[in-house]
Amino acid sequence: MRTQVLIVGGGPSGLLLSQLLHRRGIDTVVLERKTKDYVLGRIRAGILETGFVDLMREAGVSERMDKECFVHDGTIISYGETQFGINFKEHTGSHVVVYGQTEVTRDLYEAREAMGGKIIFNTEDVTIHDADSDAPFVTYSVGGIEHRIECDYVAGCDGFHGVSRQTIPLTLRKEYEKLYPFGWLGILSETPPVNHELIYSGSDRGFALCSMRNDNLSRYYIQCSLSDSPDDWTDDAFWQELKRRIPQEFAEKLVTGPSIEKSIAPLRSFVTEPMRWGRLFLCGDAAHIVPPTGAKGLNTAASDIHYLYNGLLQFYEDGDSEGLDRYSEKALARIWKAERFSWATTNLLHRFPKQNEFDLKMQQADVNFLRDNREAQSVFAQNYVGLPY
Amino acid sequence: MRTQVLIVGGGPSGLLLSQLLHRRGIDTVVLERKTKDYVLGRIRAGILETGFVDLMREAGVSERMDKECFVHDGTIISYGETQFGINFKEHTGSHVVVYGQTEVTRDLYEAREAMGGKIIFNTEDVTIHDADSDAPFVTYSVGGIEHRIECDYVAGCDGFHGVSRQTIPLTLRKEYEKLYPFGWLGILSETPPVNHELIYSGSDRGFALCSMRNDNLSRYYIQCSLSDSPDDWTDDAFWQELKRRIPQEFAEKLVTGPSIEKSIAPLRSFVTEPMRWGRLFLCGDAAHIVPPTGAKGLNTAASDIHYLYNGLLQFYEDGDSEGLDRYSEKALARIWKAERFSWATTNLLHRFPKQNEFDLKMQQADVNFLRDNREAQSVFAQNYVGLPY
Repeated sequence: MRTQVLIVGGGPSGLLLSQLLHRRGIDTVVLERKTKDYVLGRIRAGILETGFVDLMREAGVSERMDKECFVHDGTIISYGETQFGINFKEHTGSHVVVYGQTEVTRDLYEAREAMGGKIIFNTEDVTIHDADSDAPFVTYSVGGIEHRIECDYVAGCDGFHGVSRQTIPLTLRKEYEKLYPFGWLGILSETPPVNHELIYSGSDRGFALCSMRNDNLSRYYIQCSLSDSPDDWTDDAFWQELKRRIPQEFAEKLVTGPSIEKSIAPLRSFVTEPMRWGRLFLCGDAAHIVPPTGAKGLNTAASDIHYLYNGLLQFYEDGDSEGLDRYSEKALARIWKAERFSWATTNLLHRFPKQNEFDLKMQQADVNFLRDNREAQSVFAQNYVGLPY
Repeated sequence: MRTQVLIVGGGPSGLLLSQLLHRRGIDTVVLERKTKDYVLGRIRAGILETGFVDLMREAGVSERMDKECFVHDGTIISYGETQFGINFKEHTGSHVVVYGQTEVTRDLYEAREAMGGKIIFNTEDVTIHDADSDAPFVTYSVGGIEHRIECDYVAGCDGFHGVSRQTIPLTLRKEYEKLYPFGWLGILSETPPVNHELIYSGSDRGFALCSMRNDNLSRYYIQCSLSDSPDDWTDDAFWQELKRRIPQEFAEKLVTGPSIEKSIAPLRSFVTEPMRWGRLFLCGDAAHIVPPTGAKGLNTAASDIHYLYNGLLQFYEDGDSEGLDRYSEKALARIWKAERFSWATTNLLHRFPKQNEFDLKMQQADVNFLRDNREAQSVFAQNYVGLPY
């Protein structure tokens, strides 16, 4: 078999790239290690930058999103007794959109299927060959039978643990990493959100986040120890702890209910450089991870897809490889900005084991400055809604 | 003897307060542990916020400063290959002024002497008594003879190692401190400054600062190890190291010469709370220390003097103690902002022993964001020229 762009990974990045390219007549095949149901079952981010929304529109898959999403013009930040809002619209003219990654993925699958997009599930032993040559190919097996697909380019959209990044020899890439000394315990519950905007809350018991997916689906997180397991936390214990970490006015009106999902994610910052090796391009989690504070995970993947999609268009439609040649440079420039924002926002609101009392005063001073200074709020808002591509 | 306001410490803070109060008919006595020549020999800061300049004008001691000072409308920041300017005037409409602390102190002494201000030098065993009563008094000895001065209020302007802070019982105050794992090696040389604006320079060999006092008096600093001694550094070694840490265009035109002063200062952040105990008020270094990155040392002292001076005026002229009652709260609110800026600017540009490669990337990303983002530059400029009193 042969295709123009072989896409490794059937999550939202790979599907979006496939959909975008297909609509411009560029042939793709997507290889996914799991089943469609498995992919759709993953609970992830839900805050989308307008750049992501624009890509979904360009991909022709925004109809349900445009109807069902919630526009957020701002957010609430609290820290101990300090509480204030940051108005994104006022500072940037823009906003973010709440629409679950699960829904994004579902819409993309439906669109891919409607167009007859080629997605191969349950692929095993995916191997990328000769990525640094003019004739790369990918081998994989399904149900014990080996297959081979030749292609022009390979897009590595297979996440942090995927094969794509590992395909680039270690001598040719450099990894940057920071592991945070805590995780996030998150639950999903079929309850109305406590507030119409997100609440990012630092407290002396640790960080908490009140988020949502829709009018009757709430997503809450609390900072937890890396040694905790979700089984250590009953629903009741979670709700009690959450209430202690958010402003009282919200704790009092929090509607609790049984969790329908409960999990712990460690917090990590990670970037690999470069994001291109020959004809292999890394996208999204395959190349970089941000801690979830600031909601940049899916949005950084979207910015990679933006650069790769436009580079591939430039190549296939104009015969110009400039966009592909500069992919790594352009993608990384924006990634490092998102890494910086995610790292800084994590530092701003979490409790760290080694903080002394001066460090805590600096954290409070940082929060107070953000509360009181118009330009500091603008900087936060610009980063939150997404810096320009 | 009796006075209205007893001022412990004859550095710039104590002298300025004494001068301001005297001009409004409020009697003061200043006690200084050292000689006038010793105080004038101390080489310290040289960047003044306009708030400080305004206080000097109100004190009637700005004539020489207004004539000889240099107005700085901006500064240069460099970090490895990255170099850019921040224009204070454009972002804030304001500026800073270059005029050495030594000159400030000299002008204040002249003004105090011209007005017949009472300054007692070589005081030993200064002890503040009954600060929490309605009748405080201070005892000290000069040449073995003990003296006693009764007063309404005591202003503790005697620096980090002075007795004033120690007078407040440890159970009634709380200290916040951060020690940085490096110092600044500074030299003064009678050479023309390498640039008409300051250059704050981060490099892979550590931080460097190019500053100045006047057209033929330069002040340069390099980050050094806490175990270094000034004797470890010949002038030549200093100049060579400085050149390696600043942008090449400046290294090439740096005029070197013999140092006329060379010293190492450790970097420290420190705040004590509260800044008032009964009738004792702490000002300047007696209450707080900032690392010198950002040039806030003398300027934070000036903001304390502003609040205390106005509080004392309100009390003596209107019989209203509100300003004195709120002194600690008002002074600390502004101090913590300056602490934050000094800490953040130190973090931005220094090398820390425990930085990993991700941390260095975050430092570079922070610098790049400051270079590229207008509102981030505004935030820096607002802090540098001084936040409103």
